[in-house]
Parts: sequence; C-alpha cells; structure tokens
Amino acid sequence: MEKPLIILKLGGSSITDKKSAEPKTRPDVISRLAKEVAEAYAGQKFSLVIVHGAGSFGHGIVKKTGIDKGLHNDEQLLAFAEVQRLQNVLNSLVTQALIESGVPAMPCQASSHAILENGRIIKMDTETIKKLVERGMVPVLYGVPAYDTVKGCSILSGDQIAPYVAKKLGAAKIIHGTNVDGIFTSDPNTDKNARHIKLITTENIEEVKKMLGGSATTDVTGGMAGKVQELADMEIDSQITSALEPGKIRAALLGEAVGTTVKL
Amino acid sequence: MEKPLIILKLGGSSITDKKSAEPKTRPDVISRLAKEVAEAYAGQKFSLVIVHGAGSFGHGIVKKTGIDKGLHNDEQLLAFAEVQRLQNVLNSLVTQALIESGVPAMPCQASSHAILENGRIIKMDTETIKKLVERGMVPVLYGVPAYDTVKGCSILSGDQIAPYVAKKLGAAKIIHGTNVDGIFTSDPNTDKNARHIKLITTENIEEVKKMLGGSATTDVTGGMAGKVQELADMEIDSQITSALEPGKIRAALLGEAVGTTVKL
Repeated sequence: MEKPLIILKLGGSSITDKKSAEPKTRPDVISRLAKEVAEAYAGQKFSLVIVHGAGSFGHGIVKKTGIDKGLHNDEQLLAFAEVQRLQNVLNSLVTQALIESGVPAMPCQASSHAILENGRIIKMDTETIKKLVERGMVPVLYGVPAYDTVKGCSILSGDQIAPYVAKKLGAAKIIHGTNVDGIFTSDPNTDKNARHIKLITTENIEEVKKMLGGSATTDVTGGMAGKVQELADMEIDSQITSALEPGKIRAALLGEAVGTTVKL
Repeated sequence: MEKPLIILKLGGSSITDKKSAEPKTRPDVISRLAKEVAEAYAGQKFSLVIVHGAGSFGHGIVKKTGIDKGLHNDEQLLAFAEVQRLQNVLNSLVTQALIESGVPAMPCQASSHAILENGRIIKMDTETIKKLVERGMVPVLYGVPAYDTVKGCSILSGDQIAPYVAKKLGAAKIIHGTNVDGIFTSDPNTDKNARHIKLITTENIEEVKKMLGGSATTDVTGGMAGKVQELADMEIDSQITSALEPGKIRAALLGEAVGTTVKL
C-alpha cells in the first residue's frame, strides 16, 4: 500500500450505552467520532480500516442466550442469527454517520466468511478488504457471532479482528478508542494517585505489566493490560486513547502522541 | 449434506416497492413469506439458503450514481458504501421477519469477501455458508455492490449469487420467487392468450426459448427467459413461482409443482 494503513478500533462501550439492557447507541458520540474521522481522513495522509465493538447490541443477548458457549438447541440457532442481525443494525448506524460526514465507510461482515476454532480465527480472507482500501474505501468491520468448528458459534470480537486485519494488511498502527485516555497505573476515576503511562516500549513493558497486575483495580485496568499484551504479541505499534474526549481520535489519526503509545 | 439443499431466491420486486424512488419495503409480503418459509422449514425435510434482491433499495441509487459502471470520483466511493449500507438495512428487515417466525436466518454479506471481474464472481468462499447450513442455520445472502478488479465496483446481484452458491454447495434446486407465477408464452397481465409453461426440460427448452424470444412482450418475459438460460447453463433444477400469491413459496419448498419447473 502506498499510504500507511491505520486500524481504528472503536470500543462498544464508547459508541453504545453499555449499561442499557436493550440495544442503545450513543448517537452524539457516533456523530462526533464520524466528523473527527472525516476531518483526519480528508488530508489523505493515511489509509484506514475501522473496527467497532458491540456494546449493548451484543453483550446482554450473548450472556442471556449463552451462544458463545456453543449451540445446543433451536433457541440458540435463532439467537445466533439475531445477534448477527443486531450487529448489522449497529454497523448500519455507525456507517451512516461516517458516510454522511464524507467517509466512504463500507460495511464488512467478517462472519460471512471467517471460521473460528474455540474462539480464535483459523480462516478469514482479507484480500477484498485490502483491495477496497487500495481503492480509497474505508472498510468498517465489527464484532460478530461467527461459525466455530468446535462450538458451532463463538464471538469474534473487534479486539480479535483489529490485530488480525492489522497483521494481514501490514498496518502501521492500531488506534484503540476506548473510554479512558490510555493506560494508567490504577483507575484514574477513583485513585487520585493514578499515574498516566505515556509510552510503552520493549524496555519498560515488563515493569508496566507488573504495575498493572499488582494494582488493586485490576478489574478496571485489566482490559487494557490484556490489550497491551495482545498487541505486544502481534508486534504492531498501537495507541490507546479516549473516544469520549472530543478531539483525541482525530489527534491520534493525525499522528499526535495522545493517550498511551505502545511502540515495540 | 444430509438433507437436500434448496436455494430460495426472493426477487427485489416482491419484497420491496420497486416503483418507489426511495427505499421502501413491502412489510406485509415480507412477513407472509417469512411465515411460509417457517412453516415449510419446520418439517426439517430440507436445508435452506435464502438469497434476496435489492428492489427499491438498490436500483434507484445505482442508476443515479453509476457505481455499477466503475468508480471515477469521491462521490462514487461514498455511493458504493451507501448502497452497501442500504442492502444491510433491507437484509436486517428481511431476517428480522424470518427470525420472528422461527427461522434461524443468518445475514451473510457476500461483498465482504467476494471479488468480481467485469461483473462476474471470480472468487467467493462459500465454506462458512456450507458449515452454517450443516449446523441448521439458514444463511440469507442478498444482492450487493462488490469489489471488481476491473471497474472498482460492480453489482453482485442475487440472480448471480443464487446459482453460484447452488453449484458450490451442490443444491438440489433453486426456487425463484418472483412477481409472476412462472414462465408464460407472453405477458399474462395483458395477453389473454398467454399460455403457462408448466415444465421445461432438455426436450422442449429450445422451443420455449423460441416462443419467448419471438413474443411481442419480450421486455416483460425477457427476464424469465434470461433466467431459464442462466439456469440451463448451471445444470441445476429450478422452479419459478409467485412470491406475491400466498402459499406458492411454501408449496414450492414442500416439493409441489407450482409455477414452472426447469428440469435439466
């Protein structure tokens, strides 16, 4: 690819109201993020693939029906289909905002061709996504329930799709838009001594993981620590920043050092 | 596969209001068809893949933007994305009706991985669709704008998807649910001498094509004649019947000789 490729992951907890029992978007956040992406993308300095999570469009119904643990009855077949349908509804709303802002945001349903084994991708063709990117399109993938050779169905999360596509397409970096502005030594919402970690490299990664692991708020920062390790394993630079604070995603897309950068 | 596989193609002119300038479904038709499919599928005598057309969700915007003739400017990139998004919206409505009726209707977006060359599929992985069918799911594919190696974008119609999937998965037959009840020698709406053709075989196909070709209403029945030839080329049995007359689709799924049968 001629331009560096960025993978932008937008967390389900940012674009939906994750506390809602029913599927519910955050239209104001989606609309603002779409404009930020459009402004950054208009400069034509990079190619882009977006991957978003499910939030309240997935977690509730998956937990209720247990489809991520396998398909054991007809009700679960229906739930598998309905969870997929709900993700397409969410994706239609996200891509609508992007398209209206001027981003050629092409919906791409990974589960129409991916095959998983015990929850991990064993087959997923990314040639079409690559070709779309080369033609100037912005493929928008999203967390989905997918066919699993062992369990029948398992969840192919945006967190698995993003590094997979990044690696296959040789992305320059992954930007994780989440509900906190990067990695902190503890939960910044409850601990006034929480320290922001600006840069993680091979030199300090073990120290950082020890700090996160030893923290009393592992449950809050644990997700981030897990992501740090997953990204370290993929050997792709990444950046974790807030999708809720206006301007951060645009800044990250334009190469500014907002949030936490993981450079390996 | 253990059970015979049926491919059910539902025309865009049946499930949408094709005369509408704006995307508009026919919710009563979709709801009734969903119930007919559910009733037939409940007997568990066959496996099923559904393919539906775009109707007013596609033809207007494709014609207006010319994306089927190639991508020449940024507006067309946006239109490519928007046409795909609209198909996902239509598919969400179709699968919602099916799921509510008890059919595990799994949305499957062909353009997330298909590659076309001058409008014809040159690559499309159907392994996931096969596996979903084997697990009792009913994949629902649909006409989409897709990446084309020559033009950038071209239209992958339901009429191309249906025989492609049928061949790849070894389907027993394709049922075409359209707005007429099979093949007629001329337009039955305007010609009271129009004769219904109940069965087309290798013995009478040339005679039938001659009848259709020589008819003064070629523009009306031409679509059907084209389908007859396309299906003849695929060497798969097919049946053309009305999706608008209640009961016909259920009857066809249950093996009754409604409409026109093409047996080759």
